[in-house]
Amino acid sequence: MKKHLLLSLIALITLSALSFSQQALFGGANIISPEVNPDNSVTFRFQAPDAKEVKLTGDWMPAQGWTPGSELMTKDDKGLWSFTTAPLASDLYSYSFTVDGLRNTDPNNVYMIRDVATVTNVFIVGGGKGDLYQVNDVPHGTVARRWYDSPSLGMKRRITIYTPAGYESSKQKYPVLYLLHGMGGDEEAWINLGRTSQILDNLIAQGKAKPMIVVMPNGNVVQEAAPGESTLGFQKPTMQLPNTMDGKYEETFKDIISFVESNYNVITEKPGRAIAGLSMGGYHSLHISRFYPNMFDYVGLFSAAIMSDPKVTSKVYDNIDATLQQQLKNGFKLYWIGIGKTDFLYKNNVEFRSKLDAMKFPYVYRESEGGHTWTNWRTYLSELAPQLFR
Amino acid sequence: MKKHLLLSLIALITLSALSFSQQALFGGANIISPEVNPDNSVTFRFQAPDAKEVKLTGDWMPAQGWTPGSELMTKDDKGLWSFTTAPLASDLYSYSFTVDGLRNTDPNNVYMIRDVATVTNVFIVGGGKGDLYQVNDVPHGTVARRWYDSPSLGMKRRITIYTPAGYESSKQKYPVLYLLHGMGGDEEAWINLGRTSQILDNLIAQGKAKPMIVVMPNGNVVQEAAPGESTLGFQKPTMQLPNTMDGKYEETFKDIISFVESNYNVITEKPGRAIAGLSMGGYHSLHISRFYPNMFDYVGLFSAAIMSDPKVTSKVYDNIDATLQQQLKNGFKLYWIGIGKTDFLYKNNVEFRSKLDAMKFPYVYRESEGGHTWTNWRTYLSELAPQLFR
Repeated sequence: MKKHLLLSLIALITLSALSFSQQALFGGANIISPEVNPDNSVTFRFQAPDAKEVKLTGDWMPAQGWTPGSELMTKDDKGLWSFTTAPLASDLYSYSFTVDGLRNTDPNNVYMIRDVATVTNVFIVGGGKGDLYQVNDVPHGTVARRWYDSPSLGMKRRITIYTPAGYESSKQKYPVLYLLHGMGGDEEAWINLGRTSQILDNLIAQGKAKPMIVVMPNGNVVQEAAPGESTLGFQKPTMQLPNTMDGKYEETFKDIISFVESNYNVITEKPGRAIAGLSMGGYHSLHISRFYPNMFDYVGLFSAAIMSDPKVTSKVYDNIDATLQQQLKNGFKLYWIGIGKTDFLYKNNVEFRSKLDAMKFPYVYRESEGGHTWTNWRTYLSELAPQLFR
Repeated sequence: MKKHLLLSLIALITLSALSFSQQALFGGANIISPEVNPDNSVTFRFQAPDAKEVKLTGDWMPAQGWTPGSELMTKDDKGLWSFTTAPLASDLYSYSFTVDGLRNTDPNNVYMIRDVATVTNVFIVGGGKGDLYQVNDVPHGTVARRWYDSPSLGMKRRITIYTPAGYESSKQKYPVLYLLHGMGGDEEAWINLGRTSQILDNLIAQGKAKPMIVVMPNGNVVQEAAPGESTLGFQKPTMQLPNTMDGKYEETFKDIISFVESNYNVITEKPGRAIAGLSMGGYHSLHISRFYPNMFDYVGLFSAAIMSDPKVTSKVYDNIDATLQQQLKNGFKLYWIGIGKTDFLYKNNVEFRSKLDAMKFPYVYRESEGGHTWTNWRTYLSELAPQLFR
């Protein structure tokens, strides 16, 4: 017995070493990429001795329309391609490599996020806004993926719920932010791409936001759950789902509120409810908040789509002006509109604000640089959350 | 106002179309890969007109030691490489492409899992064992990522907890399975690589397993949380963490039990506690269950490492035989040992079983095909779970 005492330990260490040499096979052993340098420039590295051209595409580079910018990388005599950026502002960024015309993720960076059907590497430059998106040494909330019953849609549906640190042991009733994704998104979008739990953990720890529950539902009424999380299996995600903006989600949103208010220790009056969303989720927030015109004291529209397709018939869109008037009459604390200067929905938002101005409907307007991007939506959440439930 | 009513809708559809053409740029538009064919053969496709050689590596192929097998793919006149396997047994599989010597994930498959520092695409072949790993039309449990206090380690630590469907509204007390990962793993390993929530949802719905809570802690005592989920930021994951098998985890495991039993509605006696783990997690399960010799009625060792390094001094390893004797004397319901015929820890397990036999320590032994793989560990969990809490 004794002679093999050490065998398992040696074997485990060997396993470890072999696993490393397997990484070496893929050019991954000792390469650090990306590396954020002391001056906040960032160095990317990619081992590909036989490649003729390697390009780096990053969301901080100037884009042409929807075509992202890119930079040529340089090869050294060992076949290692590299590129170092100018110093970057503190933020969360995404990037990919293009190797002889083929997109590749960075084999030395396991941190990736999925946006619709595209998986992209990410990194954070700290020292400013990016610190809000990092896990810091602060109390952490809980993130739960649950299933709730939606009788109005006749299905069980998956939902992501952030409860702040201390929630489980507290007797206090918490306010709730309903946070809605855009077209092509699902109940994973805000928690992954949006860094919701990090932003809330950090803002709450700094005393800048009130402890709140954040509810991230799936806004595609034909889906039970995000791609890969339903009985459809590992289907390829698509943007073009039916019934996303035809009134069904707005009309059945009561199922989500009912689930949250009967399953969580929350404030069940208007001062304890906020709703915000990006793009299609901004559209949903606009229409849900006036369809239930006495439900929410806080509304946030991030790069929002605005008006419904006139061909769509739904009681939700029957009386847009009248329900906005009713919402105004009922009163609310904050109606917040944020959009980037180059957003393709900019003009729609100008028109919507004119409509609100004509109605003397009060709102706070935030115009940022940039366009229809997660960079802006993370910023808007970071700016809106501190204004809620005051 | 009216003339731009449709603008936002059109713009959103345009955005969708542009996003698709962006995918087309990366060769991803209309390609389905992998495609499971009616006979359970699987076709892989990869668009790379300029590549000279594309290989497919899959975990169902015969491997040489730790070197996975691979197959050459064939290019058609449009630059689409493809390969179709023989019919595969129902299971969950992982694969990658190697393009002119460079590893690439499949750009048409967003479903990936991380194992230590390697990200790999996955797919499921249904019709048998693989059905257990799929999301089926059954009641679904909740998966929560929480943080608990570990006073013995002086830190807050992240933990993954599965609660079965109905837990939140039930008054009954649930049994708990503590499920431990291997070297290089963390609190994300069993829920992602192990498909724990799908396996439990399905077995419970079929009446094959009792509803139970599954607690998946982080077994690396130097880590607060999985890579990317702690203050260390987006660090490159490594296998070689200190203090993983020096007794600290076993000794401080009481913090985890204490957290679970004071925060969940659970049975707090031995008949309601099980512990199981893979590789290093099997080692931890062995040593935790005899270090707390009256705590668990069910123990599962999956491809377990067995004996401690004699150079390690810890009170945990001081009296291995005596504590096993004590565990035997105290009694338990099931001690389950599973290992694959080609596992590098096979011999250690033979010796451990001889030791148990000499002590007349009862156990159930399950020998499978294959080696030290997640394929086996998912199988072992699927087989052990139905035997718990009977």
